[in-house]
Amino acid sequence: MIGLTKDPIKGKKGYSITPNASINEVSAENFDFLVVPGGKSPEKLRLNRQILRFVKDFDTQGKPIAAICHAGQVLASAGIVKNRTLTCVAGIRDDMINAGARYVDKAVVSDGNLVTSRVPSDLPEFARAMIEVFRKPQLLQVPQRR
Amino acid sequence: MIGLTKDPIKGKKGYSITPNASINEVSAENFDFLVVPGGKSPEKLRLNRQILRFVKDFDTQGKPIAAICHAGQVLASAGIVKNRTLTCVAGIRDDMINAGARYVDKAVVSDGNLVTSRVPSDLPEFARAMIEVFRKPQLLQVPQRR
Repeated sequence: MIGLTKDPIKGKKGYSITPNASINEVSAENFDFLVVPGGKSPEKLRLNRQILRFVKDFDTQGKPIAAICHAGQVLASAGIVKNRTLTCVAGIRDDMINAGARYVDKAVVSDGNLVTSRVPSDLPEFARAMIEVFRKPQLLQVPQRR
Repeated sequence: MIGLTKDPIKGKKGYSITPNASINEVSAENFDFLVVPGGKSPEKLRLNRQILRFVKDFDTQGKPIAAICHAGQVLASAGIVKNRTLTCVAGIRDDMINAGARYVDKAVVSDGNLVTSRVPSDLPEFARAMIEVFRKPQLLQVPQRR
């Protein structure tokens, strides 16, 4: 897990987790799969240039990116949702559309290297879709629209 | 205070307030000033068509609208931020820009009938700007760009 820093992060239900690395220490080249969680953190992550660069690099390299709930806020600020088909929590739907995405109200949406989901109750389907993308690298194509 | 319903609303710190009316019962014609609060409610309010219609009508009638923090999400979904100069909490800045707004990082920004602010610590300046707009109706101009 990558954090803004290596300081432990406490979730809203009290669960604590310590990042393995800070965003300062990592490069997209050294990772195979990116999962951007939702909740309140995306509004903080999207303000960090290194986070946005990391996400953008991941996408440029055509590697799988999974995002659920509010995580689309990070993708939008990284500039990678334009002309992509995706889903997200309803509350940021209009923001994804304004960022140029094609919004679909489905539990999981896969579009090339991008796998998106809406809410925690979609997690089982989200997990299956992530595994599918990860197991079938032939599904991944470096997007040609950029 | 107008709510989605007349059911009491409980804030995150436990304070409870009962709306005077539900959105079903009101029309923009009967109000002089609209304040859209921030927090987590804008992501719910922006999904309600009557709310968006109310906000849009208010703007079309050139009456003052004040919005702080995440309230810009409601304004964006109501389609009234394009070509407007405004501010908001940093976490939704990119969404306001993608919706066509000119974002400014200032405690308070007034643009015609629209008064916007960023965070709770801006409240004193936000309140002064709201009073100023309310006291000087000549400041209000029905926008001509729509």
